[in-house]
Parts: sequence; structure tokens; C-alpha cells
Amino acid sequence: MFRKIGLIAKQADAAVRDALGSILAVLNRHRIDVVLDVNSAEVHPTGQYRRVTDEELAADRDLVIAVGGDGTLLRAAKLTFPRKVPLMGINLGRLGFLADLSPAQAATGLEAVLAGNFSREERCVLECTIQRGDTMVATGYGLNDVIIQRWSTARLITLNTFIDSRFVHSQRSDGMIISTPTGSTAYALSGGGPILHPTLDVVVLVPICPHTLTNRPIVVASTSLIEVEIGVDRADDSRVTCDGNPLSMVKAGDRVRVTRHAQAVQLIHPSGHDHFATLRAKLHWAREPC
Amino acid sequence: MFRKIGLIAKQADAAVRDALGSILAVLNRHRIDVVLDVNSAEVHPTGQYRRVTDEELAADRDLVIAVGGDGTLLRAAKLTFPRKVPLMGINLGRLGFLADLSPAQAATGLEAVLAGNFSREERCVLECTIQRGDTMVATGYGLNDVIIQRWSTARLITLNTFIDSRFVHSQRSDGMIISTPTGSTAYALSGGGPILHPTLDVVVLVPICPHTLTNRPIVVASTSLIEVEIGVDRADDSRVTCDGNPLSMVKAGDRVRVTRHAQAVQLIHPSGHDHFATLRAKLHWAREPC
Amino acid sequence: MFRKIGLIAKQADAAVRDALGSILAVLNRHRIDVVLDVNSAEVHPTGQYRRVTDEELAADRDLVIAVGGDGTLLRAAKLTFPRKVPLMGINLGRLGFLADLSPAQAATGLEAVLAGNFSREERCVLECTIQRGDTMVATGYGLNDVIIQRWSTARLITLNTFIDSRFVHSQRSDGMIISTPTGSTAYALSGGGPILHPTLDVVVLVPICPHTLTNRPIVVASTSLIEVEIGVDRADDSRVTCDGNPLSMVKAGDRVRVTRHAQAVQLIHPSGHDHFATLRAKLHWAREPC
Amino acid sequence: MFRKIGLIAKQADAAVRDALGSILAVLNRHRIDVVLDVNSAEVHPTGQYRRVTDEELAADRDLVIAVGGDGTLLRAAKLTFPRKVPLMGINLGRLGFLADLSPAQAATGLEAVLAGNFSREERCVLECTIQRGDTMVATGYGLNDVIIQRWSTARLITLNTFIDSRFVHSQRSDGMIISTPTGSTAYALSGGGPILHPTLDVVVLVPICPHTLTNRPIVVASTSLIEVEIGVDRADDSRVTCDGNPLSMVKAGDRVRVTRHAQAVQLIHPSGHDHFATLRAKLHWAREPC
Repeated sequence: MFRKIGLIAKQADAAVRDALGSILAVLNRHRIDVVLDVNSAEVHPTGQYRRVTDEELAADRDLVIAVGGDGTLLRAAKLTFPRKVPLMGINLGRLGFLADLSPAQAATGLEAVLAGNFSREERCVLECTIQRGDTMVATGYGLNDVIIQRWSTARLITLNTFIDSRFVHSQRSDGMIISTPTGSTAYALSGGGPILHPTLDVVVLVPICPHTLTNRPIVVASTSLIEVEIGVDRADDSRVTCDGNPLSMVKAGDRVRVTRHAQAVQLIHPSGHDHFATLRAKLHWAREPC
Repeated sequence: MFRKIGLIAKQADAAVRDALGSILAVLNRHRIDVVLDVNSAEVHPTGQYRRVTDEELAADRDLVIAVGGDGTLLRAAKLTFPRKVPLMGINLGRLGFLADLSPAQAATGLEAVLAGNFSREERCVLECTIQRGDTMVATGYGLNDVIIQRWSTARLITLNTFIDSRFVHSQRSDGMIISTPTGSTAYALSGGGPILHPTLDVVVLVPICPHTLTNRPIVVASTSLIEVEIGVDRADDSRVTCDGNPLSMVKAGDRVRVTRHAQAVQLIHPSGHDHFATLRAKLHWAREPC
Repeated sequence: MFRKIGLIAKQADAAVRDALGSILAVLNRHRIDVVLDVNSAEVHPTGQYRRVTDEELAADRDLVIAVGGDGTLLRAAKLTFPRKVPLMGINLGRLGFLADLSPAQAATGLEAVLAGNFSREERCVLECTIQRGDTMVATGYGLNDVIIQRWSTARLITLNTFIDSRFVHSQRSDGMIISTPTGSTAYALSGGGPILHPTLDVVVLVPICPHTLTNRPIVVASTSLIEVEIGVDRADDSRVTCDGNPLSMVKAGDRVRVTRHAQAVQLIHPSGHDHFATLRAKLHWAREPC
Repeated sequence: MFRKIGLIAKQADAAVRDALGSILAVLNRHRIDVVLDVNSAEVHPTGQYRRVTDEELAADRDLVIAVGGDGTLLRAAKLTFPRKVPLMGINLGRLGFLADLSPAQAATGLEAVLAGNFSREERCVLECTIQRGDTMVATGYGLNDVIIQRWSTARLITLNTFIDSRFVHSQRSDGMIISTPTGSTAYALSGGGPILHPTLDVVVLVPICPHTLTNRPIVVASTSLIEVEIGVDRADDSRVTCDGNPLSMVKAGDRVRVTRHAQAVQLIHPSGHDHFATLRAKLHWAREPC
């Protein structure tokens, strides 16, 4: 059961205040021990709840609730997954793929979760390291994706890809997306990638605008070691991003190594959660069998 | 070790005669017990080898060798996988994704395999049944794919898809491809599907020319039960095919059920086989890291 | 000015009756001479209006109004364009790309048109002939598209394409769509083709699930002579359709010749018609600049 | 007839020296008045030919010959088209779409052209201006394309597009390519655009990885005024490039205006030039009708 809960919000605004208000009402009724992140604390400055830094947020919590959109949940996931703390998302604004409870559903959904009526879903996380000769120059994590892409240039970059030390291809393109199932409905989908069911232990490599038209998305095991070597051609014009955040510039000969992290994000949903219903709503698919 | 081998060939022609000749020379040198299918026997009518029907071909064999293209190997796979007999492909003509040994490599490759220098790769097989009310009206198997498609009509068909009894979508299209990793480089690729690594336990659902542009390929576990219900609209104009062979017409309300068969095809490759090298050759990717 | 108008409807049902009622009220008020097609006459059997066959419908008319969806308008266009009679569409049910006036807008829109507040848009028509040796075996017309496609088979067909007698490519696929700008938002879009602005004098050749992944849509002048020769391989399994209607089976060596017809369809819209607004509504694009 | 010819080369290297040697041999035999650009002069420093700056190169010439790849030809085109001087390309290295004569064909091709056996092909040029309030802050030209794209950021940009002052759509994406027929086989093809025949008076708008999956390539008249307004969201992270060369950063509210320039590039080909043959060779299409 969840007795110690952390709240993290997108920013301090009216919508967050209202959502936090109804969430805290439920949590108080259940006498839950609550801590707030900086943004949440700003709209609830009463001192009733302890305010913590991002680093402390998940420290001794049973559950973290992210209030915002998919972006807020991605940020919260970075804080919770290394400590194996489950995570639940309340979306403000448009329905998210990850933050899939609306403010109106928040109180009811939270009651269900506190009553033990929930499902727990593991979402894998990618660990990315950049190797320059014998030195590891950067490490990052992606719940959605790791992307190697051209940066501040209009010219194509060359990427040499290896899976478990086997050469796959040498590709000239705008870059490559290495996406989890979670990320498969984000940028990878815009790049032409398939939708991957969240429970699968796979990742997809999606080339971005490849010069060779037969360079297509490739799905491999998430436990594979994916290595992308930056080609000598214009290598200084490439950058690695994790979940949309720039990690590091890369140079010719650098190797970007990506594989599944040992810890997964644990997403909590009130019972009855239906991933396909979210897909139908977000992608304007027909709602009913015809 | 392989001591009893069956040979199956595409058709009786000069190329098959030459290839069979060099294969039989190796097998004789190793004193292998050999049987031939009808086509093979036709080009080797000496009576030295027993001629068997397709049904008997794999009956008591350790290995079956298919001589032809990917089509011949698909046909051979149907004979070998229920009996768990491994299968090896020699291609005539263009390099295949499955029959990936050229005639020139056949003798050397076969020597390697007989000496125990080989890898064994499991390729999953789809079992497809068509349910009409309480009756199962047809059963088929696909190493590449099961396809539900419009037939003898230019009008779109409506398909309602369910994964493990959950509704996914209702789609108007030319049809849907349910493809194994093996089939992901065949018709599914032309339909816009991703390349799936052969070792993955997944299948991909690829819509064919869907009316709704956001209907995209979806990758799910191969152990999922995929059900496609034929919509009432023009249902008599649809057909199910397995690996390109028509299985059955379908009617409104029929349910096409697809899931992974318990037995997999066991592909034998001489050691050193490299799936990505085949992809590079077939898809005109750059051959070397740049 | 439009003084003699023909009405053509999808079928005799309640929605058609209501729409026809409000249209006829406007036409009577303006003392327009009206004739009805069979379906329209069935819901207005009073004898007040002359009932005509499809062939007679446009014979001496200034304008024809089609009541139904895009399918009804396509059917009406075949009757009007050879006689250079303008055409206007009222849609029942979902908004169409062609029949873009809703029943609610019908009366106001019609008033505007009768008052001379309208725009006239020319939409080109494809003429398709099938040549077998020295014989022309069939002729058809397409406002949307001419399609050569596999029929009653799961196997690919081979098509050799020539533009103005220059060889373009030999393609193995499910077929090829030759689409006008009008058809570019219909089946060609599902096949991966671009959206062509209706005023352009171009057609697009869209391969359907081509085996060679680099076979991409090609846009050429609508005045080009496009010739598609049916390859010897399985040629008897192909068929030509025009606007979704089967025209003829084709055999090995047949040449399907497609070019722009001298006459165009003249579409009438009330002033203020905005093609991009229709695209935004049908394709779920954002409605407002952000 | 061509009596005064300018030569422009990619760079001073051995391949350029050899190609220039055979070209100059032909030109001398025909007593052509020749000038060289800086790179050409560097490998032919004899003083026999006048060396000119890029700006002077086309000043009083009948013809300019570009020796290099498509990039060299794009650079040369900027020098020749405002002065209506025809242009011919000799490629070094891989066959280009534009520079389609190999060094081996150069001498023969040039002889044919000097003898009057050539075709002249007009390729349209895009003029791009960036409007900031009442000020025009930059002007550029593209024979291939004008691209508005995100720059030094991983976040999507918002672009509001207008055609001839009509609102088309508001799109969140990595950017948009506005491509001529010439550019349709360059970056626009990697972005999913169609192949446009070079003689067409059209341009294609290709969204780059659009967030809305129904944002598809749109083909419009090249005489259209295409305006792309930079959305307020993260507008400082966008840049305009012409033929791959950065033109200018753009800010929120800037309008990028693109339309066809009055002058076209005039490409000269020896008689018998076949654009489709180039497409077949570059895109690995089957070479012969099957």
C-alpha cells in the first residue's frame, strides 16, 4: 500500500493549484504522508507539507504522482526509477500517452489506487554512454528515446551502427532515434517508426530522413548493445539527446552505446487502464467496432 | 549430427540438377541416408535414392535441405516444423532472405554443417484459424505472414482488431498483414512495416493502404491472441492468405484468430551466418562503415 | 445563370428526402425547370417534376446537383462532363472532399449560386484505353483515378511504365494508381501519394506496396501519355478500375494508356469556398494559426 | 552556338585536373574563348586562360561548364541563372542527378553540344525573402529547395503556412522543405516527398517529421506565393537554408516568403539525355522492361 507519496508538478499555475487541491484532499483523507517538489510547494505554501528538492523527492516514498503532461512525467521518471519508486501521472491539458488521467478522473483514480485497485506496468529505460577512445565522456537516460542527430548544420551526418558488435549499416541521414516502446508513440512515430506495445522488451532504431530510401526502422531486443559510431564526415556537427534534452556533442570516432537499464520505470494505473483506448483517442482512430 | 537428410527442390531444371549434383556428392562422401522429393527425383532418376511424397519427406529425417528460393523454403518449412526437423536453404537465382547460401557456397556450407559447425535459429510460425459462429472453418500456417485482404473488389474492407480480447481499432483499408519477424522483410516491408530481428518473439500488424492515415504498424508479443473480425460492410469480398497461399474466403462476422504456434521452424546456417549482411545485400545498404 | 437544373441522389431514403425537399423549395421559388433522376424521383413521386434516365439527366441542363457523398458526385460527373454541364455537390453524412456543402448549408449555398455568387473550378478527367495488339478492348474515365491492380491473387504483378514513350520503370507491386489532383486525397493518399492542388495540370503515379522500396510516387504533366504494359508474369491476374469501378481484366502484353480528357468536370461552389479548409477538416489538421 | 565558355570546378585535385584536361583539349580544338574560376585556374596555372572571380565567371559567357558533383552545379547555377547563361555539368565521382555526364563521356558530350546536338532544359529557381515586420531581412535562392528548420534545439517548431494568402495549416514539426522539381530527388525525397518531373511548374511542401501524422506533402503551382510564418513557440530556434546553405535565423512572427524567380536555370544536355534513365540508375530500379 502507498503511505508515503511525493507530488511533482509542471509549474505553478492555476490549473496545477486546482489539480493539487483535489489530489491533496484525497491524500489527507487517507492520512498519507506527503512531500511536495518546488513547483507544487509554490502553489501550496501553507507549510502543511514538507518541500523537497528533486533529488530528495523519491528518497523514501512509496509512490510519486506527477501533475502535468508527458514532459512532467518524463522528468519525474528520472527521479523515481533508480530508487524503484512507482509513478503515476495526472495530465493537465491534452491527454498524454503517459499522463493519462484527466484532472476530473484524478480523485476517483487516486482513491482506486489507494484502495489497491491498480495495475503496475514496467516501462524500460535506456542507458546511453558516449565513449571517446578509452574515456566515457557522458551518461544519460531515456524513457522515450536516445537520439543522435545533426546539430547547427544542414548537412547529413554519417552513422555506423552495430548491434551486439555486429555491423548493421552505415547511414547518411539527419540522425537516428533509438526508441523504447514508450517513445514509439512520441518522436519515433513522426519519423516513420512503428507503434511498439509497452510490455515488449524491444527497442526500435528509426533513421531520420535517411539518404538511402531502404534504410527502414529496425526492431531489436532491448537487451542488445546498440553502438553508433560517429562517421568522420562532419562529426563535430552531431549531438546526442535523451528524451529531448541535449546530453553532449559528439566527435568523429565517438561511440554512442545504448542498452536497457537494469531498473525500469514502474507506472501505476487505476484498474481498467486500456492502452489501446489511449491510442484510439490520441490518433483519431474509430472509437467502436464497425 | 545429421545422418538422414531429405532434399526438396523448386522444380526440375538444369540449375536444380547442377545444385543437387554438388549437394549429393557431399552427402554421398559422408554416407548420408538421402531421400528426394518429386522434383528432386525427376532430375536424379537413377533409383539410387528413395523418392518420397511431400508428406513423407520429413518423416524420419534429421535435416531437410531446400533447393530453390525463399518460396521453396517456405513450402519446405510447412513439412518440417510440425516434426521439429531442422531446415537449411540453398538458393538458386537471386539471394534470398531465408535461402541464403548460393550454389557456389553450397558444398562448403554443407561440409561445415555436417562437421557440426553450424548455428540453429528458431523462426516462429503463425497459426491462423477462421471462426464462423461456433465453427472453425479453416486452419492455416504462416512462416512469413497471415493476410486478410480485399479480394475481387476495388472497395475497402472494414476490419475490427482485438489483441488478447481488447479492442484495438476498426480500420477501413485494403487489408491487414500479420507478419512474423521472418515475414517482416517480405510483403510487410512493402506495406510500410519495420524490420524485426528474427530472434524476437513479436509480430507486427501492418495495415494495407489504410483510409485513416494514422493507422500505423503495431508490434505486439507473438504469444498474443490477435483476432480480426470481418466488418459487416462488403464482408464477402475478403480472403485470408498464409504465406501468399489463399486459405479461405471470409464472411461478415467471421473472426480470424492468429497466434504463435507451439513449434518453430529451425533454420540451420553454417557458422558465421550474418543476418545483417543479408539485409545489407538485399536492401542496397552501404557495405562498409564509412 | 442556371435556369434548367437536374437533380441526382444517392438512393431513396429519409435523409435524401429531407435534403431534396429544401433544395426543391429553393428551386421552385426561383421557378427553375427541374428534372429528377430515378432515385430522386422515387422520394418525390408527385409527378411535379420530370423523371429522366441517367443518360438524359444532363442533356439540356445548365447545372446538375448531386445529393449524396463523393461517390454520388463521381457518378454524376460521368454524366455531366462530356456535355460541359457544371456540377454542384450536397453531401449527406460525412463531409466529402467533393460534395462539400452540408444539408444545412444547401439552401443558402444554392441561393448564392443562383444569384451568381459562385466560383467555377475545373477538375481534369483521365481517359483510359486498354490496347491489346491492334485492338482497343476497353475505354473508361476517371475523375479520381485509374488503377491497374492484382485481382483474385495474392501474388505481385509486373508493370512496365512509359511516359510519352520513354521507359520509366519495371515494377513488381500490388499495382499502380494513376491519380488526378481530385483523386490525390482519395485512395492515392492511402497509398502514400502527395496532396496535389486541384488547379494543377498534373497527375501522380503511385505504386501500391512496391517490392522495390525506392519506387516512389512520381508527378508528371496531365497531358503526358502514360502507358503501362502488363508484364508477362501472371498477367491474367490484373484488372483496371476507374474511380473504383472495374473496367476490364488485362492480359500479358496489354497496354493501359492514360491521358487527360479534353473536357474537364466543372465544379460549382458558392463564393468563399476554401479547399484548404476542407483539407483541415478532413485530415484533422490544426484549425487556426498558432 | 557556344563560343565563349567559363569553367568552374569543385576543387583543385587530380580528378579535376584530368577532367579539365580533356575538356580544354576539346575547347581548344574548337578555338573557344575560355575563362577559368579560381579552382580550375589552380590546376591549370599556365596563364593560357584568363582567371576570373565567381562573380565575373558568367559575365559575358555563352555557356558555363561545372566540373564536380551536384553541389558544384548548384553553386554554378547561382552564378549563371541571373544572367541567363546556360549551364552544363560534368560529374566527378558518383553520378549526379544534375551533373549527369561522367568524365569518360565528357569529351564526346561536349563535342555534341558544340556541334549543336543538345537539348536545353529549364529548371525553376525559388526566391526566398524573410520579412520581419516591414523589413526584408534576407534574400536567398534555391535551385533545389528552401528549408525552414529547427536549429540547435531538439524541440519541435510551429509553422503557419499560407498559399496565396490562404491559410493552409499550422504544423509542429522539425521543419518544412519547399522543393522545386529539381530538389524533389534530393532532401525532399528523404523526407517522404514525391518525385516531380523536372519540366513541371510546381513546387512541393514536405513537412519534416510532423507531429500530426496527416501532414503530408502538398504540391502547388510554382507561381504560388508560399508564406510560412514562424510560430511564437520557440521561434528563435529556427533557421532558413537555401540549397543546404544557411541563410538566416528567424524569429517569432517572421514570414518566410517563397515563390518562383522570373529567371530559370538553363541546363544543357547532349541530345539523347534521358531523365528517367538517371532515376533508374540512382534509385536502383530495374533497368529493363520485364
